[in-house]
Amino acid sequence: MIPDALSHGQFVTVYNFLSLVIAAQLFTAVFLVISLPRILPRYRNAITVAIVVCGIAAYHYFRIFDSFRSAFVTKSVGGTGTYTQAVGESFNEGYRYVDWLLTVPLLLVELVAVLALARKVQSQLLFRLVPAAALMIALGYPGEISGDNTVRGIFGILSTIPFLYILYILFSQLSKSLKNQPIEVRGTLSRLRFLLLLSWGVYPIAYLLPLLNIAGSDAWVYKQVGYSIADIVAKAVYALIIFRVAKMKSYADDR
Amino acid sequence: MIPDALSHGQFVTVYNFLSLVIAAQLFTAVFLVISLPRILPRYRNAITVAIVVCGIAAYHYFRIFDSFRSAFVTKSVGGTGTYTQAVGESFNEGYRYVDWLLTVPLLLVELVAVLALARKVQSQLLFRLVPAAALMIALGYPGEISGDNTVRGIFGILSTIPFLYILYILFSQLSKSLKNQPIEVRGTLSRLRFLLLLSWGVYPIAYLLPLLNIAGSDAWVYKQVGYSIADIVAKAVYALIIFRVAKMKSYADDR
Amino acid sequence: MIPDALSHGQFVTVYNFLSLVIAAQLFTAVFLVISLPRILPRYRNAITVAIVVCGIAAYHYFRIFDSFRSAFVTKSVGGTGTYTQAVGESFNEGYRYVDWLLTVPLLLVELVAVLALARKVQSQLLFRLVPAAALMIALGYPGEISGDNTVRGIFGILSTIPFLYILYILFSQLSKSLKNQPIEVRGTLSRLRFLLLLSWGVYPIAYLLPLLNIAGSDAWVYKQVGYSIADIVAKAVYALIIFRVAKMKSYADDR
Amino acid sequence: MIPDALSHGQFVTVYNFLSLVIAAQLFTAVFLVISLPRILPRYRNAITVAIVVCGIAAYHYFRIFDSFRSAFVTKSVGGTGTYTQAVGESFNEGYRYVDWLLTVPLLLVELVAVLALARKVQSQLLFRLVPAAALMIALGYPGEISGDNTVRGIFGILSTIPFLYILYILFSQLSKSLKNQPIEVRGTLSRLRFLLLLSWGVYPIAYLLPLLNIAGSDAWVYKQVGYSIADIVAKAVYALIIFRVAKMKSYADDR
Amino acid sequence: MIPDALSHGQFVTVYNFLSLVIAAQLFTAVFLVISLPRILPRYRNAITVAIVVCGIAAYHYFRIFDSFRSAFVTKSVGGTGTYTQAVGESFNEGYRYVDWLLTVPLLLVELVAVLALARKVQSQLLFRLVPAAALMIALGYPGEISGDNTVRGIFGILSTIPFLYILYILFSQLSKSLKNQPIEVRGTLSRLRFLLLLSWGVYPIAYLLPLLNIAGSDAWVYKQVGYSIADIVAKAVYALIIFRVAKMKSYADDR
Ligand SMILES: CC1=C(/C=C/C(C)=C/C=C/C(C)=C/C=O)C(C)(C)CCC1
Ligand SMILES: CC1=C(/C=C/C(C)=C/C=C/C(C)=C/C=O)C(C)(C)CCC1
Ligand SMILES: CC1=C(/C=C/C(C)=C/C=C/C(C)=C/C=O)C(C)(C)CCC1
Ligand SMILES: CC1=C(/C=C/C(C)=C/C=C/C(C)=C/C=O)C(C)(C)CCC1
Ligand SMILES: CC1=C(/C=C/C(C)=C/C=C/C(C)=C/C=O)C(C)(C)CCC1
Ligand code: NA
Ligand code: NA
Ligand code: NA
Ligand code: NA
Ligand code: NA
Ligand code: NA
Ligand code: NA
Ligand code: NA
Ligand code: NA
Ligand code: NA
Repeated sequence: MIPDALSHGQFVTVYNFLSLVIAAQLFTAVFLVISLPRILPRYRNAITVAIVVCGIAAYHYFRIFDSFRSAFVTKSVGGTGTYTQAVGESFNEGYRYVDWLLTVPLLLVELVAVLALARKVQSQLLFRLVPAAALMIALGYPGEISGDNTVRGIFGILSTIPFLYILYILFSQLSKSLKNQPIEVRGTLSRLRFLLLLSWGVYPIAYLLPLLNIAGSDAWVYKQVGYSIADIVAKAVYALIIFRVAKMKSYADDR
Repeated sequence: MIPDALSHGQFVTVYNFLSLVIAAQLFTAVFLVISLPRILPRYRNAITVAIVVCGIAAYHYFRIFDSFRSAFVTKSVGGTGTYTQAVGESFNEGYRYVDWLLTVPLLLVELVAVLALARKVQSQLLFRLVPAAALMIALGYPGEISGDNTVRGIFGILSTIPFLYILYILFSQLSKSLKNQPIEVRGTLSRLRFLLLLSWGVYPIAYLLPLLNIAGSDAWVYKQVGYSIADIVAKAVYALIIFRVAKMKSYADDR
Repeated sequence: MIPDALSHGQFVTVYNFLSLVIAAQLFTAVFLVISLPRILPRYRNAITVAIVVCGIAAYHYFRIFDSFRSAFVTKSVGGTGTYTQAVGESFNEGYRYVDWLLTVPLLLVELVAVLALARKVQSQLLFRLVPAAALMIALGYPGEISGDNTVRGIFGILSTIPFLYILYILFSQLSKSLKNQPIEVRGTLSRLRFLLLLSWGVYPIAYLLPLLNIAGSDAWVYKQVGYSIADIVAKAVYALIIFRVAKMKSYADDR
Repeated sequence: MIPDALSHGQFVTVYNFLSLVIAAQLFTAVFLVISLPRILPRYRNAITVAIVVCGIAAYHYFRIFDSFRSAFVTKSVGGTGTYTQAVGESFNEGYRYVDWLLTVPLLLVELVAVLALARKVQSQLLFRLVPAAALMIALGYPGEISGDNTVRGIFGILSTIPFLYILYILFSQLSKSLKNQPIEVRGTLSRLRFLLLLSWGVYPIAYLLPLLNIAGSDAWVYKQVGYSIADIVAKAVYALIIFRVAKMKSYADDR
Repeated sequence: MIPDALSHGQFVTVYNFLSLVIAAQLFTAVFLVISLPRILPRYRNAITVAIVVCGIAAYHYFRIFDSFRSAFVTKSVGGTGTYTQAVGESFNEGYRYVDWLLTVPLLLVELVAVLALARKVQSQLLFRLVPAAALMIALGYPGEISGDNTVRGIFGILSTIPFLYILYILFSQLSKSLKNQPIEVRGTLSRLRFLLLLSWGVYPIAYLLPLLNIAGSDAWVYKQVGYSIADIVAKAVYALIIFRVAKMKSYADDR
């Protein structure tokens, strides 16, 4: 999957997008840490989880960035020639799955926490969503690292089952809880699920690419850019919307 | 655009200016973090955004600094000879556009936030300013990386449209809101827009240089120095003025 | 014990698990630091110790990760070939014992602190648990670094004595104190001891492997993965359960 | 000015003094950050500026230290032979002027801020001191980098004019303000100006050395040591005295 | 003094002890920072000084660790052979004296501060202890770096004079002040002086080794291990006991 060569333009594009994700995740975390006291204590857990998610993502993108930088090299003066795979250094895409294993369940915790449901309802939701999310990532991994398209296909399908289950819970079960939320955040929370669907959808689509025989360095560069944008939306933008909801609920509760 | 060779004096000048920007942005952020509690809660959002902007800038200048340092090398003893482009390393100017994409919209958020307008007026202003700022940067990028002066010219003009629109909003629409500000900050806020105009103006002018056939290592060094000074003014000095306004409004509100 | 060669898959597996532990420990510490004010002052000492434990573990895993990365090298393009031991760099497993010497006693302090017992009972428990824990690690070390299986066996047995003593205290003596805990945490605390038993049990089992003549690179990779998972459970998961207990007791006390 | 060779003893002396300055500045900043809440809000601005000054100095000394370390190399086993200038690396003394440009004006802000004068008197003092300080450094720079002793002399004299003006303000104008300070800090504040004079005086004297034809590696090592000590006194020791004044004034105000 | 060669076991032993000190000092500082609010304001200065001391020690041990790592190298595969002195890198023991110059006086400040004596008595004690401590270190340095045993002996004796003076003040003068301390801490404070004596005593003994003609790599390794343990006791353990005293006095005062 990893291309043998990248043009200077392709190299720099991936390079700058990876750096953009670091900055976006790191400073979303910084923003939330500083803004935390402006939220009522009962919503702080949601924001704390959001901080942790963006922090973990920043950590992994630091690693991915460094891995990318040493995995592709050029011998041209001024570094403007073709970049080829370095001797002794592999580009480690596995970091993404490590990241997802930790952050994808936490993204769901973040959403449930900001609803501030009754303890029992919350437990029920988390008890379904968190293991499903972990299972989804764990089942995708063997397919991702396999060179065999059949294996990839089978694990892709297996991983899709918990994915659909999560969507079912979010779009059917969660609806009841949304009705008890203050009126001014109901719309935002409902739309947030679509943003989640849209950004999460990028990952299974990227997973499909090799099955569709889409290869080559261009496809690979698009995939990295796509992952970068999806990660910013699914974590940083998502966190800022959760923060907005928490702020509006804090005002509503104070009334 | 990137010169083939720099004299030791030129190398050191760029080097020291890049380091100066790191120190200025980083410690403006530190100053604001420590000083935040002295501001009334309603103005803290503006300062938090200022902290994030200066933090992002410090992060990018760390990267630009390291990129510069490894992109130019010399073989002279004591490092006092001529510096030429290194093998396998390019100076990455793209970081600047990544930085602007994140920070330029936030600079406008900072300004609107310190005004503490009615929620509706604020939304209207941000809804105009933020997308225009992002569009301005995004349209400038294809021109910047293109080697062709016609492409550069076209995208430069396209990017100037949202730029002028932003200036129009700031100098015409915002004026109404300024009238509702406490008397002691009205002057500062009004002058702040001229500081913004002055520092932001540096970027399109630097963009013009290749169109005017101004090239060579001297022009390039001046451009780097110009960017460095403009970045300090547009972010750190600007943040300190916003902080001053927030402090004066905090006193005024407490009266 | 350290394998002469690792396949790319084995190398990447160890690599990713070590990085996973860094992220898990570091961000558990971050989560607890931010959440600390939500706990009543009397339980904050337990959480502070948990933060320190996870922080120390993150520090050591940074070192282990770097040590692993430079200890195995490949000459294949793209880094997908076989990894062999590097010239001049050893993989330093000793970091684990350094880590345990500091963190294992603190894990017991964490547990006793969250119980918030009478000062005298607490002193008695710590006076027994802490030296036993330090002794257990110190006695295991000479066996670990010895190449001789007899030495390994003897020190293994010696180290098991304080291990059993700790378990005896936890499962017999501590039971009396558990009776005085609020009803809603009694179950959690009791189960926590089994989680402790389960995760701590991994270490003496891994210690046994060479005695059972289980060697080879696969066994070694499993050991690293096993250590990684056990370390996450014994420190990060454990800390989060302690935090949960502290939060529930804070609510109970406030009633 | 930079010597061609340093003995091992000379190398290590400079090395350890540079590291000493890092530790002194960094941990003075840490001490002040932690101690800040013990000061009344009205004096916190002075201490915040002191934190920023020591932080900026620590940053620059990190850079100077790294620059020194890579600028001098030896080929002796055990590193105990003679150190000569490295290929491709220059020792960057320019960092000092970058540092001064930011910190010297702030040192005067620090002093004025702790006096907590009437807003108008404060503005007048700062309006005179801050530009004079910036001018003093800016005028010294062209002389410092020039190889020509006449140029050095001329800019030295020009830079001395704002220097004398600053001293005049501090020792004549400031005296009136000192009379309104609480009795217990008046002596300290008065003596503080002499400490400032003493430590600031080191810089123009070091500037004179080449004019006096004092050269050679010994003179250079003494200069580095002298700068290091002067920097610790002028920033860290100075900050601690300002802190002491702020603490005593806090007590006095609380009475 | 620095051995020409270390066995792999010796190398790893020093390596792990130096890393242990980093972890111990750094996380003692972290623990104290988080725990600071649990102490009454009047004892916070003592703990702040303790934080600074442990922080400075962690900084220096980072440097010593890196210095050690690059000063000894091996050419064996897997790094298990003999380590010899590297070309161009010296092991810098001087960091220890730089550390002591800053931290030894502060350790005495820490002790006096936790007593919370009358301002005058405190000033008198510090006025004696702090200069004596600085003098003791400064006088030891010329002996340490001299290759000549006579010089070493003379400066050792000179340095012992302020050492004995410090002990005299601690064991005779301080006794009066101890009588005014709350009864529950009197014993701890008295024993603390013996812990100080025990750990501080390690340094002059290590200084004596070359005079006793004790040399060789084993002696050197023991010295490094001895320094490491003494540094943990004299700073981290000492800080935790001071913290305990401050906590007990906080309770006593609140009664
Ligand atoms: C359904 C499916 C997958 C789903 C992955 C998802 C949904 C990942 C979400 C990641 C997020 C939200 C990251 C945030 O930064 C896999 C594992 C690709 C395997 C193929 C099938
Ligand atoms: C109009 C215009 C431009 C405007 C750029 C601006 C206005 C950048 C502002 C940057 C700031 C404020 C950075 C702060 O650190 C471009 C993109 C150069 C392209 C040419 C036309
Ligand atoms: C009984 C026994 C041992 C026990 C080790 C234990 C119990 C380690 C626990 C480590 C933890 C909890 C780490 C957390 O991250 C040794 C030393 C292997 C030696 C063989 C006998
Ligand atoms: C008068 C004079 C000078 C004064 C420099 C000063 C006064 C520097 C102060 C620096 C400080 C206080 C640093 C703190 O860390 C120069 C520029 C050497 C040029 C020659 C004439
Ligand atoms: C008496 C004496 C000495 C005393 C050194 C001491 C007492 C050092 C204490 C260091 C501490 C406490 C470090 C903490 O980490 C010297 C200088 C070796 C020189 C020989 C005579
Ligand atoms: Na590369
Ligand atoms: Na991700
Ligand atoms: Na270079
Ligand atoms: Na910029
Ligand atoms: Na490697
Ligand atoms: Na461990
Ligand atoms: Na060097
Ligand atoms: Na300086
Ligand atoms: Na080495
Ligand atoms: Na030390």
